[in-house]
Amino acid sequence: MLQKASNNQVKLLRKLGQKKYREKEGLFLVEGERAVQQFLENKVVRTVDFFVVQGKEPPSFLTTQKCYELDSEFFNELTNTETPQRVLAVCKIPGEISIELLKDQEGVIIATDSIQDPGNLGTIIRTATWFGAKGLILGKGTVDMFNPKVVRSMAGATGVVPFLNSELNPVFEVLEQSGWEVLFLDGNPGAEPLNRVKVPGKTVLVVGNEANGTDPGLITADRKRVMIPLQGTQKAVESLNAAIALSIALYAIHN
Amino acid sequence: MLQKASNNQVKLLRKLGQKKYREKEGLFLVEGERAVQQFLENKVVRTVDFFVVQGKEPPSFLTTQKCYELDSEFFNELTNTETPQRVLAVCKIPGEISIELLKDQEGVIIATDSIQDPGNLGTIIRTATWFGAKGLILGKGTVDMFNPKVVRSMAGATGVVPFLNSELNPVFEVLEQSGWEVLFLDGNPGAEPLNRVKVPGKTVLVVGNEANGTDPGLITADRKRVMIPLQGTQKAVESLNAAIALSIALYAIHN
Repeated sequence: MLQKASNNQVKLLRKLGQKKYREKEGLFLVEGERAVQQFLENKVVRTVDFFVVQGKEPPSFLTTQKCYELDSEFFNELTNTETPQRVLAVCKIPGEISIELLKDQEGVIIATDSIQDPGNLGTIIRTATWFGAKGLILGKGTVDMFNPKVVRSMAGATGVVPFLNSELNPVFEVLEQSGWEVLFLDGNPGAEPLNRVKVPGKTVLVVGNEANGTDPGLITADRKRVMIPLQGTQKAVESLNAAIALSIALYAIHN
Repeated sequence: MLQKASNNQVKLLRKLGQKKYREKEGLFLVEGERAVQQFLENKVVRTVDFFVVQGKEPPSFLTTQKCYELDSEFFNELTNTETPQRVLAVCKIPGEISIELLKDQEGVIIATDSIQDPGNLGTIIRTATWFGAKGLILGKGTVDMFNPKVVRSMAGATGVVPFLNSELNPVFEVLEQSGWEVLFLDGNPGAEPLNRVKVPGKTVLVVGNEANGTDPGLITADRKRVMIPLQGTQKAVESLNAAIALSIALYAIHN
């Protein structure tokens, strides 16, 4: 028999849906069997507590863990997905990387400028992890990386790529002084086609807001704008989705 | 003064949230100013009626169109997005392309095998349009392309790429007899790295279900499986998102 979750645990779980409480407690939620299992395998993020739906056996990868029961109604209220989940973990928010450590790396760093859609941010980080990005700079206006919907779209990748929440310009300046070049994904006229750009070994790739693109204040004269060439015969779509554009750029840089 | 929407119009709008009524009426909904504007510009899909929120001026691109008013509460109930919309159009579902017409083309055809997430399907079609795909085959288990969430994620691209709802195997056989090769995006062992595959001029690119991949029954001996090589140093994510993998493949094929 599993122990029922206490009132305090239930209260905490409810609070962790909100950013201010996640920050205060230093904790976040991971929903779903696959994601929780991946967190346990990756061992990058510390798992604190596990919860399963009342009346069901915990999945095999949780048999050595202490699990608490939650009734299914509260579970559904909390997870709020179309496919009902039956496993939930509370994890510790990992610490941020310092820009001093990040600047001495080589490779690709991803920066997000006001990415607002949780699914987009999660997909961006999942893909950045797949392509071995060295860091992630979450600029102003970007949705919280520990929002449950972002965590869900990350498919277990939370915390694998070192991250930093910061205004973008000051960080870019530090990186540029260490030999990094800043490249904006930008569909506006004048951007260079990605397949014709020689990408340097230390590249900061910036992806902008879904509707408005990148803040023009960031695009100084020595920073390059790149675009993914349209192949269709008519311009029937204005642009690519932000996560799609970034993923294509990551592939192109590595191949 | 705009005319208020009639009770019959309100009833119809509500019904169009469901696939069976979309099929019966041959109509679907387009939500949001940008999308409706793009539909008018593309002229691929016939717009039937326009609706705007009561008490607001219609946007400038609708001034020559007959618009009806809906109260904002019903509008929000109907559109069900986080950002409230204020423009809505009812459009005619365009006809499907026949496999006989499709097989005589050249280029890339996209096939979806049980893509269930509306955002994924919409993003797949938006990207396929950007890359000028010649056709779209929506296999069994794929979410309805005229689902409002799919239409929203398509960002105006609905109907630009000719489409066909069908079982995949019979269609693949017809295409193969006309010189098309079927390529599966597949992360399982044995798939060839995408950057090492010579892609033929008539390629059917198949993207499988988000959780389970492609139905193994489709992968016959003369059909190739391709994968996007992992670049990260540790396998911290199981796979790429389905729409991301497809988009990278489309870029790679064209560059």
